[in-house]
Amino acid sequence: MRIAVAQEAATADVAQNLRTLERLAERAARAGADLLVTPELFTTGYDPGRVHADPSLLPRAAELARRAGVALVVSEPHDDGTAESITAVVVDRDGTVLGRYTKTHLYGPAERAAFAPGDGTPLVVDVAGLRVGVLVCFDVEFPEAVRALAVAGADVVAVPTAIFDPDVARLLLPARAYENRVAVAYANHVGPAADGVSTFSGGSVVVGPDGRVLARAGRDEAGLLLADVGAADLRDARDVVDYVRERRPETYRLG
Amino acid sequence: MRIAVAQEAATADVAQNLRTLERLAERAARAGADLLVTPELFTTGYDPGRVHADPSLLPRAAELARRAGVALVVSEPHDDGTAESITAVVVDRDGTVLGRYTKTHLYGPAERAAFAPGDGTPLVVDVAGLRVGVLVCFDVEFPEAVRALAVAGADVVAVPTAIFDPDVARLLLPARAYENRVAVAYANHVGPAADGVSTFSGGSVVVGPDGRVLARAGRDEAGLLLADVGAADLRDARDVVDYVRERRPETYRLG
Repeated sequence: MRIAVAQEAATADVAQNLRTLERLAERAARAGADLLVTPELFTTGYDPGRVHADPSLLPRAAELARRAGVALVVSEPHDDGTAESITAVVVDRDGTVLGRYTKTHLYGPAERAAFAPGDGTPLVVDVAGLRVGVLVCFDVEFPEAVRALAVAGADVVAVPTAIFDPDVARLLLPARAYENRVAVAYANHVGPAADGVSTFSGGSVVVGPDGRVLARAGRDEAGLLLADVGAADLRDARDVVDYVRERRPETYRLG
Repeated sequence: MRIAVAQEAATADVAQNLRTLERLAERAARAGADLLVTPELFTTGYDPGRVHADPSLLPRAAELARRAGVALVVSEPHDDGTAESITAVVVDRDGTVLGRYTKTHLYGPAERAAFAPGDGTPLVVDVAGLRVGVLVCFDVEFPEAVRALAVAGADVVAVPTAIFDPDVARLLLPARAYENRVAVAYANHVGPAADGVSTFSGGSVVVGPDGRVLARAGRDEAGLLLADVGAADLRDARDVVDYVRERRPETYRLG
């Protein structure tokens, strides 16, 4: 599977963000990508409390995935009739919506005020012959969340994110990949945040199942990362140590 | 707390290993260390199937800790009357045995043939004003094992190890420290292994609770690492994100 990760600046203008997304999807498809992972709440812009669910967003994102011919992980606010949450949706290259995941670990007071957390129901779907699991941002900092996807059979963990701290991508993500023998594709925003104070830390990355960084973006550069992860890479890493199999869950006191 | 980590070559000669340990304990104490962490099965040498429990070992290790005046994490085979296991014991600076931990994740066929695994009962003891938890080697590669110690209140995780692969220290340990807001002190052997084929990868390390490497040994050098970790470092890291508190254990599907 060729994975593309978009590191881009979203705006408060949904139409403009969708045009950016369309351009990225076309570029990813031309580069032979099977899957494009995009930053957290990219279509609306990452602005908790100001951005809201819009039922017209997903059909438009699905249509541009279909036109480009690339599967897409797109994150958006979602309203289930009770509350709004931060979600990420996997759309197949033919525009089919394969599933929606709800962010389980909300970060900080602004997210907690604006959104309800998910219940941890994992999403793992088939894309281009591999099993793709999805988390959002803060989720991936918890080893339990990635482990749950690996236990559910994920080969690739796709993570839309919106983060100001480069340490997570640098320190945690190679470990997440290594300790689960999965690839991790982490897509961050770049440039100034909507709060007018913070700056996204970029540093989007694709890590292979042996913990090696396959592609990494700089702090300030917008663009598209590309990396190949195949069944043989997963098998090779799991042949060294298959951590999911070697676990001893009956001994863990995690209460 | 000043932590010392010994990276040294053990031999098949127990008396010689104890003399090495004594010299290291004296050096650590002279350098102001409160705690000395030593490699896996250092007193017997790491040689599964050839080394066995010896009830005279721990009293001798405890006595040299007392004479030097430094607390000690020492790993040894232990026979509980039913089976032998790989254990690590914490001895206080006055020679008091504070507790014993049994390795839960055995690595590879040689260890599994020679030793029985532990049931995961965590060991966390007070040393020099901090809470010290203990794991052995392969255990620390499982995020669940370190998490369980953090949940049990550990500030420092001491890990005797015997490993040939430098990736674990480089890729996993900064993450273990960061994601639990604990310090990690990892003590490996150096030089050729008893199998006559493998070479220990050295790379012993102390990582702070913010994931920064405080001290790291080279691949081939014997010696003593020193690093300071205090209550303020732990508090500062936990003030940024307290991962133990932010977990959502009720959502994790780790079965």
